[in-house]
Amino acid sequence: MTGPRAPVVGMVGAGQLARMTCQAAVGLGIGFRVLAAAVGESAAQVCAGTQIGDYRSLDDLVAFGRRCDVVTFDHEHVPGPHARALERAGPRVRPGPDALRYAQDKRAMRERLAGLGVACPRSARAACLEDVTGFAAGSGWPVVLKAVSGGYDGKGVWVCDGPDQAAEVLAHGIELIVEEHVAFDRELAVLVARSPSGQAAVYPVVQTVQRDGICREVLAPAPGLAAATAVAAQQLGLAIAAGVGVTGMLAVELFETPGGLLVNELAMRPHNSGHWTIEGARTSQFEQHLRAVLDLPLGSPVAAAPYAVMANILGGDDPDLYSRLVHVMAADPSVKVHLYGKAVRPGRKVGHVTAVGDDICDLRDRAGRAAAYLSSGVEQERPQR
Amino acid sequence: MTGPRAPVVGMVGAGQLARMTCQAAVGLGIGFRVLAAAVGESAAQVCAGTQIGDYRSLDDLVAFGRRCDVVTFDHEHVPGPHARALERAGPRVRPGPDALRYAQDKRAMRERLAGLGVACPRSARAACLEDVTGFAAGSGWPVVLKAVSGGYDGKGVWVCDGPDQAAEVLAHGIELIVEEHVAFDRELAVLVARSPSGQAAVYPVVQTVQRDGICREVLAPAPGLAAATAVAAQQLGLAIAAGVGVTGMLAVELFETPGGLLVNELAMRPHNSGHWTIEGARTSQFEQHLRAVLDLPLGSPVAAAPYAVMANILGGDDPDLYSRLVHVMAADPSVKVHLYGKAVRPGRKVGHVTAVGDDICDLRDRAGRAAAYLSSGVEQERPQR
Repeated sequence: MTGPRAPVVGMVGAGQLARMTCQAAVGLGIGFRVLAAAVGESAAQVCAGTQIGDYRSLDDLVAFGRRCDVVTFDHEHVPGPHARALERAGPRVRPGPDALRYAQDKRAMRERLAGLGVACPRSARAACLEDVTGFAAGSGWPVVLKAVSGGYDGKGVWVCDGPDQAAEVLAHGIELIVEEHVAFDRELAVLVARSPSGQAAVYPVVQTVQRDGICREVLAPAPGLAAATAVAAQQLGLAIAAGVGVTGMLAVELFETPGGLLVNELAMRPHNSGHWTIEGARTSQFEQHLRAVLDLPLGSPVAAAPYAVMANILGGDDPDLYSRLVHVMAADPSVKVHLYGKAVRPGRKVGHVTAVGDDICDLRDRAGRAAAYLSSGVEQERPQR
Repeated sequence: MTGPRAPVVGMVGAGQLARMTCQAAVGLGIGFRVLAAAVGESAAQVCAGTQIGDYRSLDDLVAFGRRCDVVTFDHEHVPGPHARALERAGPRVRPGPDALRYAQDKRAMRERLAGLGVACPRSARAACLEDVTGFAAGSGWPVVLKAVSGGYDGKGVWVCDGPDQAAEVLAHGIELIVEEHVAFDRELAVLVARSPSGQAAVYPVVQTVQRDGICREVLAPAPGLAAATAVAAQQLGLAIAAGVGVTGMLAVELFETPGGLLVNELAMRPHNSGHWTIEGARTSQFEQHLRAVLDLPLGSPVAAAPYAVMANILGGDDPDLYSRLVHVMAADPSVKVHLYGKAVRPGRKVGHVTAVGDDICDLRDRAGRAAAYLSSGVEQERPQR
């Protein structure tokens, strides 16, 4: 450590977010630990301070927290009572349990946002089919059913075209809310860092491109976004961060609609929509998260280049990512590939590619091409320009 | 690991160069290990694959190499015969022992560079005082005595104003060469990556600013450097890299003189003159070193901003770097601080600060101010502009 007082941050969870946070911790000269379920997990492979344990076990959490000054999270699945008990046991827990609740419980989140006067899709409790059909009578079909917390079989969001589909989702027996299916122009995201002292920093607003419910691409900043809309989104992000009392990174997923911005989701951790910041901003979201949870002054969130494009690498059929890396590097020496060390499974996020520069069309082409080749080993056709 | 074929790179030595290489390895999805003398060493603190051992012990090297596909180095102190024996034991050793020799033995380096037709300071063997005085009769005093390999008491270069000082150095009983004391205009450095396939990439030429024999500051690119000189330096770097057969990073330290460029030193590893590449170039020297020793296609060495300035943080009297970090971050949210986790000792390199942007005067001021405050806790006076 760099001196008598360099603190230790522990992150619960050892996925790619913890892996990239671990990478950012190196430069800060702090201690960094992860609580991993298994030694092979993404962050556990690269972290010198891995502890194996179960985030659902209070004993494991407390044992982990004993060696940390601050505990933070790579996911939002730690039960709220555990987070509270962990805090009583010693370390600072950031984001704190009161804030974390709004990332864990979608009904609480909708209520809090309504209380803050933030525009959201219309939503209601969906305890039974009548709740859903009654809601749809007003909003029209399709509707969106969302698990209040967690999900079922890895899924937490279902778009339902009619009562039959809704009944299928209800049959899982999990707590649900129903939301209107918003006819948005595009999806945006705004990332805010907020520290316990109340300092906040907001990143440029980005566009996220999803397919089949999975984020494929992030464009930073969102191309052609009206300046007033960008400012409104940033103010919204800052207001929500303060309103929910988050410490660390907050990602606010937004729908851009003809009627204005609607808040879709919140996440209280580094987020896929911020991976571009590693190369594309003065301070990466991972370093920023660490600075925020340590109550260090925040870094500049300003862009380091006119545009950055991030494309996710989704697992394909062939597990041998590394042999394809060679070809991507040979084809384009300027893209930056990040591999997460995760076992390849179809559709799983196993890495991402970032390209930064002046020409967003060129960057989308290059990042997308590299990510697609790493996914599938198949060269995309070059689009006609 | 990311697939069945992701390789493991091992780095002998666990200083800050290994620490930052470890950080770069995360994104490549490869395995990375260090051979450290102790668990507290800079890279050992952050590396998930630390093995404790002595680089002077062949047994330790071979045991380390057994778990690596490629072995590379954070310093040049591994004895040549050990490097050869290690290679026979299994892993690829990069740079290879034949190349490494030129970074380990200054006489061999001077001879090889002469053979390549590269201009160097005049030099000669210095076995006794008569060798030195005879050389000085031609070159004039002062002269520079250099240890052929290693050094004495952490020092390997002595500027001697006369025979008395030279006699003192000779009294250490180590093998020496004598070189002319070059009246240079400034010091430059050029970094080249070269892979086993022979692919090479050269970074923009930088200016290095030394004080008391320690690098304080690196300006990238070297301000006001004539285009023809920059090209000449880059060609020199590429020619030397090919001529000595290096794999991995090669740093060529140069004197810019009215008569042209002279080669001062070679290093075959990531180098202090390349730390600016983490934020300032498309591909950092640390990732580039890994790509080169793995024979992956090299990344773009192109600058990511008009200027980058790196200032070293030297240890001062107070060991508590972390408490000063807070003030530096508050004063300037755009500088990037890298702490090495090393115990603070006066004059020791314990971190560095990089600032990137358009205005080199502003960047020098900001990086220098942050580094000086981290060193000493004393605010520098702001220069009058």
